[in-house]
Amino acid sequence: MSSLAVKILSSHMVDGSMKKGEMMSIKIDQTLTQDATGTMAYLQMEAMEVDKVKTDLSVSYVDHNTLQVGFENADDHRYLQSVAMRHGVVFSRAGNGICHQVHLERFGVPGKTLLGSDSHTPTGGALGMLAIGAGGLDVALAMAGMAFWLPAPEVVKVHLTGELSPWVAAKDVILELLRRLSCKGGVGRIFEYSGPGLACLSVPERGTITNMGAELGATTSLFPSDEETLRFLRSQGREADYVPLCADDDAVYDDVIELDLSSLEPMIALPHMPDQVVPVREVAGFPVDQVFIGSCTNSSYLDLMKAASILDGKTVAEGTSLCVAPGSRQVMTAIAENHGLAQLIRSGARILECACGPCVGVGQAPCSGGVSLRTSNRNFLGRSGTADGKVHLVSVETAAASALTGVITDPRTLGEPRKIAVPERFEIDDRMVIWPPEDRSSVEVLRGPNIKPLPVFPPMGDVLKGEVLLKVGDNITTDHIMPAGAKVLPLRSNIPAISKHCYATVDPSFPERAVAAGGGVIVGGRNYGQGSSREHAALAPQYLGIKAVIALSYARIHRQNLINSGILPLLFQSQEDYERVKQGEVVTIDNLMNQIDGERISATFDLSGDMTLINDLSKRQRDTIKAGGTLNVARAALMDD
Amino acid sequence: MSSLAVKILSSHMVDGSMKKGEMMSIKIDQTLTQDATGTMAYLQMEAMEVDKVKTDLSVSYVDHNTLQVGFENADDHRYLQSVAMRHGVVFSRAGNGICHQVHLERFGVPGKTLLGSDSHTPTGGALGMLAIGAGGLDVALAMAGMAFWLPAPEVVKVHLTGELSPWVAAKDVILELLRRLSCKGGVGRIFEYSGPGLACLSVPERGTITNMGAELGATTSLFPSDEETLRFLRSQGREADYVPLCADDDAVYDDVIELDLSSLEPMIALPHMPDQVVPVREVAGFPVDQVFIGSCTNSSYLDLMKAASILDGKTVAEGTSLCVAPGSRQVMTAIAENHGLAQLIRSGARILECACGPCVGVGQAPCSGGVSLRTSNRNFLGRSGTADGKVHLVSVETAAASALTGVITDPRTLGEPRKIAVPERFEIDDRMVIWPPEDRSSVEVLRGPNIKPLPVFPPMGDVLKGEVLLKVGDNITTDHIMPAGAKVLPLRSNIPAISKHCYATVDPSFPERAVAAGGGVIVGGRNYGQGSSREHAALAPQYLGIKAVIALSYARIHRQNLINSGILPLLFQSQEDYERVKQGEVVTIDNLMNQIDGERISATFDLSGDMTLINDLSKRQRDTIKAGGTLNVARAALMDD
Repeated sequence: MSSLAVKILSSHMVDGSMKKGEMMSIKIDQTLTQDATGTMAYLQMEAMEVDKVKTDLSVSYVDHNTLQVGFENADDHRYLQSVAMRHGVVFSRAGNGICHQVHLERFGVPGKTLLGSDSHTPTGGALGMLAIGAGGLDVALAMAGMAFWLPAPEVVKVHLTGELSPWVAAKDVILELLRRLSCKGGVGRIFEYSGPGLACLSVPERGTITNMGAELGATTSLFPSDEETLRFLRSQGREADYVPLCADDDAVYDDVIELDLSSLEPMIALPHMPDQVVPVREVAGFPVDQVFIGSCTNSSYLDLMKAASILDGKTVAEGTSLCVAPGSRQVMTAIAENHGLAQLIRSGARILECACGPCVGVGQAPCSGGVSLRTSNRNFLGRSGTADGKVHLVSVETAAASALTGVITDPRTLGEPRKIAVPERFEIDDRMVIWPPEDRSSVEVLRGPNIKPLPVFPPMGDVLKGEVLLKVGDNITTDHIMPAGAKVLPLRSNIPAISKHCYATVDPSFPERAVAAGGGVIVGGRNYGQGSSREHAALAPQYLGIKAVIALSYARIHRQNLINSGILPLLFQSQEDYERVKQGEVVTIDNLMNQIDGERISATFDLSGDMTLINDLSKRQRDTIKAGGTLNVARAALMDD
Repeated sequence: MSSLAVKILSSHMVDGSMKKGEMMSIKIDQTLTQDATGTMAYLQMEAMEVDKVKTDLSVSYVDHNTLQVGFENADDHRYLQSVAMRHGVVFSRAGNGICHQVHLERFGVPGKTLLGSDSHTPTGGALGMLAIGAGGLDVALAMAGMAFWLPAPEVVKVHLTGELSPWVAAKDVILELLRRLSCKGGVGRIFEYSGPGLACLSVPERGTITNMGAELGATTSLFPSDEETLRFLRSQGREADYVPLCADDDAVYDDVIELDLSSLEPMIALPHMPDQVVPVREVAGFPVDQVFIGSCTNSSYLDLMKAASILDGKTVAEGTSLCVAPGSRQVMTAIAENHGLAQLIRSGARILECACGPCVGVGQAPCSGGVSLRTSNRNFLGRSGTADGKVHLVSVETAAASALTGVITDPRTLGEPRKIAVPERFEIDDRMVIWPPEDRSSVEVLRGPNIKPLPVFPPMGDVLKGEVLLKVGDNITTDHIMPAGAKVLPLRSNIPAISKHCYATVDPSFPERAVAAGGGVIVGGRNYGQGSSREHAALAPQYLGIKAVIALSYARIHRQNLINSGILPLLFQSQEDYERVKQGEVVTIDNLMNQIDGERISATFDLSGDMTLINDLSKRQRDTIKAGGTLNVARAALMDD
């Protein structure tokens, strides 16, 4: 009577409890990192003095910072390659593709656990893998052989019936779920897909859905391992990795969502949240300045061939720029050999390197106020690199159709779709994946001048006193806290430098004010810290002296990143309390070392008066805060080994 | 008894004299601009209130700023497209390719004149076209129908005999000339190629040579229009544009250079000047961090297929990053269809958009201190985007061979080269080229917030008094004066903003000091202002209040850009005078409006005392300086029309 999620969680459980509201820890079989979060993860691993990773497989990808507008990116790549070789990590070179696409193709295994320092790691759920995103430090701990702690999740069954209509895509499935559930709808939950509708979804299409489950705030999303999984693994020459996996017939779920695939139509997420979803037809006809096809959400062979088939023989509209980034070298080679790439080039598509690219604001920023239709997963304000850019999220079909007309276009107006045949067997060529050598000890780790040692922080003191340096509203994303994009991402290995961009889009004076005040406190609303897994959104505030965040609720990964960084994430008891607090007043929490062991914490605000805050940290998390962060704890633990 | 250069010059002459040392003006048949210089050229054209361009053909290309790390690039592209449609200019969209490669393929015509706001415009000389680089304002004047003024050039015959040995390339021909003549060796000269050695050089190979004639400082370089020209034009479906052209048998030249092609071997330009050339074998074995194949110098079909054939079935060395940017959409389509692109991808090459890219520091900056081997044309300090990057210039053959081994490699060690067949007829597809509409009057010109109106400057006063704000040495390039690269190029439409980066690599305090001092004077050595045609290297100093430059000698394009900007370019009488002047002292030139009409100018330096300076400006140039720059002159002239 177990769901597949519970089966995998149980088989990997190390400690804690699976009861709702409790914390549990699981063994991690595989890890992945990407370059924007990876440098920090490996610096942390080095700080823990781990000689060789203890996972079955750990892969370090380079896919975010590939523009290289200064020396920093190339230095990071060189560091990542050398530190991987030194510590037994597999290295995927720049140009080999996006971590999630490549990991699906070459490394993911049904039934295994995967922890990745990227919030879209749940893409691996398409293979029946329990794949979770986390901060780099959590991944570093997993590489050091330590279990991964998470709040015991609810499991929600998404029961799929019917079949997708022509021109309706897997992307529309997840956009519909976002419409129904919102960006907060998945917090603390695993979405497990099942039902007869599964049969019409190939593994890469399932990947689109599990990928963007991250935008629901879900812990992860999961598909069974079935005939489609076998077909996919066989196409990768990996039949041997196949194992059939599904929930028990009588599995019990915390909730069930019914979804009739045949009822769906092309959907679009309007600016600036992935859950602002409406049918494409409702906004059809609006001019489009830019279209981007790619990202870990939609850059498989099938995705790119769909685009090629729609664009074949036609021309991108005069006022619209279309850019296309294949998801992997395997995909790019395949479409280079079967004329798909030539069809795209002829139509006027600008072909970008196999990488995340525009999705994370690394290039192809739209024009001022520009409308950009993207097949990627996030449309947060400013993420595109253009502060007033208007990013919409759509399927490949809608993107390609709109590129041709220059206006938002429902692809169902295009007539009959061409049938795309997916190769039964892809060309297997892992030459851009480097395996660590037998003799690792002689490998020299190469660092550049922008790769700074981790700042070290003392344990938390007994009195927490500080100014409310910033008060923000609901749904603050990690893009707000620590912007991505081509200008800031190169600083990811340098906490002092990147901290100067903390909250840049909300209040550029924040870093300076924080330093001048000797640190303080941030007040947030609901779903604080949603979005990316970047722990820089905690490390930068930590560096600026932030001691606590007080909010109405938190996104899971960011909350853990705060704790890892020694920042206390407290909760308001009510919306009214949140509203009472004013930016600029000073909050004092006395006797913190005692108070932190309880679930209520008394605080005094110098203008708003006394207030009781909620402390929902687990015992382990409380100890982490007391110690000044996870790195301090882990160093101590590993030294005891 | 005329050289081909003299024939074309004579047939286009409008005014002046072809006698050495005099100025002459010629009718311009075609113009080209690219986006980094083009926005300024079209702003200037607009300021002159030109309704429709008066050339046979003017093409606006987008090839430099295609990374789009902020809104500025896309805004510029939008402006360029709309202003082209408004004023009768043909627009080549982003992704269509590098201006010089596309112009060769689709537009160049033997015997015509081409003026381009890019210093590598002489590439067109490969077709027997008289193709000259100039500042944007000169190109704007040409679009307005005005003749182009230049110092009457010397014509040098380069007599080619013999045949290139296997693995020796056209690139090695021009590297050898740079070794012999240096970066100053071509100033005031046109290099006209002739002799039996011509037969082994196809038009794109000739383009490599004429392209990099710019690094000799040459006015331009020129090949006859012969059987190879016809073959090339036929492959482009442009037989009708063919006309046979060559020098008279008894043509008289100012100088003759003999070059036996069979005596050449693979060459390499060491950091940081294109004339620091040695044989590859002398530096073979040095580790290489990065290889770049592309740029307007080496990105033809033949170039990329050579690279593909060398890399086919092999793998890029583990410690080396190889990136490849095809020169045009035509090239990219062809190699996508014939497996060449797939061969490159399989080998591990990172495929970049069809654009200038790394050559101009737009992406792919090497790691700190990294050795980068590039097939491009300039290796000035810092141009790569990495201040201590070590860029070497090589042929495609040397680049590809070194990518495989990870060390500088003489390609002759690779065995027998494969024979590359160039298609007799390329696929002709100009869909990414947009022609202006019949009714241009209704076209709205779209501007972004970073596109600032041109600053207007008053006429020169009668007393020139100012501090020597900066004293620099020999061979200062326009990259020193106004850096390119992904961080500064987006500001090309915004003189106030870009001025803050003036002389950034030499003295970052210069802009602030110049403004604080209310302007002043710059002192330079020999060959001041070599390199790119960017007029921003004059517009920014103008904006910062620079009234005069005093140097030992000037590069042609930059000198004219200074005059166009109303900055007086004076000469020292001797090296001793140059050495006497100290940065920080104040120079005064009284009675300037009279003195400027003479060839000697009396100046007083408050520390170094009195000094006589040389004024070698033509009458027309003197009038320009008096008026405060060419735009003031042209506006007045066009209003008289």
